[in-house]
Amino acid sequence: MVTKTLPAPNPGPTTDRGEATRRHILDVAGYAFAEHGYRGISLNDIVRESGLTKGAFYFHFPSKEALALAVFQDKQEDWIGQTMAALMQCHRAIDQLEAMLEVGCDILERDVSVRVVGRLCLEMASQEELQPRLLPHLTTWFEMTAQLIRRAQEEGDVRPDIDPKVFAETIVSAFMGIEHVSDALSNFEDFRRRIDGLRALVMAAIAIR
Amino acid sequence: MVTKTLPAPNPGPTTDRGEATRRHILDVAGYAFAEHGYRGISLNDIVRESGLTKGAFYFHFPSKEALALAVFQDKQEDWIGQTMAALMQCHRAIDQLEAMLEVGCDILERDVSVRVVGRLCLEMASQEELQPRLLPHLTTWFEMTAQLIRRAQEEGDVRPDIDPKVFAETIVSAFMGIEHVSDALSNFEDFRRRIDGLRALVMAAIAIR
Repeated sequence: MVTKTLPAPNPGPTTDRGEATRRHILDVAGYAFAEHGYRGISLNDIVRESGLTKGAFYFHFPSKEALALAVFQDKQEDWIGQTMAALMQCHRAIDQLEAMLEVGCDILERDVSVRVVGRLCLEMASQEELQPRLLPHLTTWFEMTAQLIRRAQEEGDVRPDIDPKVFAETIVSAFMGIEHVSDALSNFEDFRRRIDGLRALVMAAIAIR
Repeated sequence: MVTKTLPAPNPGPTTDRGEATRRHILDVAGYAFAEHGYRGISLNDIVRESGLTKGAFYFHFPSKEALALAVFQDKQEDWIGQTMAALMQCHRAIDQLEAMLEVGCDILERDVSVRVVGRLCLEMASQEELQPRLLPHLTTWFEMTAQLIRRAQEEGDVRPDIDPKVFAETIVSAFMGIEHVSDALSNFEDFRRRIDGLRALVMAAIAIR
C-alpha cells in the first residue's frame, strides 16, 4: 500500500493562487474523509489540517457537504481519466473490460485518498439531499461498462445471449461490494486478489474463448 | 415493499417478561437502525420509541453499541435460519445456491428491518472496535457459499476448474454491493431484479448445463 505525502500549500503566482488553494483543500479533505469517513470528521478539523484560515477555507468551500461533494467529484474524475487512458492501450473491448478492473486496483493502491469515493458514496447515499448528486457517478460506470460489453459482443469475444446492461450493473455493484469487503477485512490489502476473483467470474460468464 | 406493524410490548407471564422486553427492544431498534443507520439515531431516541423506561431499557442494553451488535446478530440469525429452511427444499447444491439468493430477496422484501444488516455492517465496519464482532458474519456466508459450490462440483453441476472459495467470496461481496446500490438507487425496489442479474452472471460462469 502506498501512502502519499501531502503537497504543502504552494500558492504560486497570484492568478493561480485560488486554484492552488482549492487543490490543496481537496487533497487534505480527500485523505481526511478517506480515513475518517464523512461523519467521522468535522469541518473544523479539516480546516485545521489544511493550515488555512477559516476565511480562506470557507471562501472555497462554505460547508462540509459542498466540500465532500467536490472531493468526490475530483476523485471520480481522476479515476475515470486514468481508466480512459488505460482503455486506449487496448484494442479489443474485452481487454478494455479487464483493464478497467485492473486500473481500479492500481488507483486504489497508488493513492489512499481515492478510497474516499467508496466511503463517501455509501455514507452520503443515506442522506436524501445528497443522493441526486451521487447517482450520476453510478450511472456513468454502468454505461461505460455496458458499452464495452456491447462492443465486445460485436467483436465476437463475448457471448451474444447475455444482456450487456444487466451484466454491466452487476459487475459495477460487485466491484463496489468488494471495495467494502476488502476495506473491512484487510484495509484494502487483499483488494487486487478479490478483484482478480471478480474478473475470473466475469470472464467465465461472458467470454467466448 | 412490505412494512410491518411493530408488536406492542406484551410482557406476558413474569418469567418471560425479560425475554419479551428484550425482543421488543430488538424489534424497535431494528426498524430504527434500518431507517436511520447507526450514526443517524441516538440511543435516547430509540429508548423513547420503545416506550420503556430508561431503567428497563438499559437493563437489557447498556449502550448503543451493545444494542446494535445484538440487533445485527438477531437479524443475521433470522436470515441464516430462513436460508437453511429454504436450502432443505432443494436436493442439488446448485439449486440451493440459487435458493440462497432467492431467500435474500424474500427476506429483504418481507421485513424492512432486515436492511439493518447491510447498513450496520458498513457503518460499524469503519469502527475498529466493532470490526472483530462483524467479521464472523462475513466468514459464515463465505463458507456456506463455498461449501455449496464444492458440493455442486461433486454433483457434476458446476465446472470443476473454478475455485469454490474465490467464487464464493466474490458472490457474497457482489450480493452486498447490490444491497447498497439498490438501497441508494431505488430504496430496494429493484433489489430482486438486480439479484436476478447476479444469478444470471453466476450461473453463466459456473454451471454445466
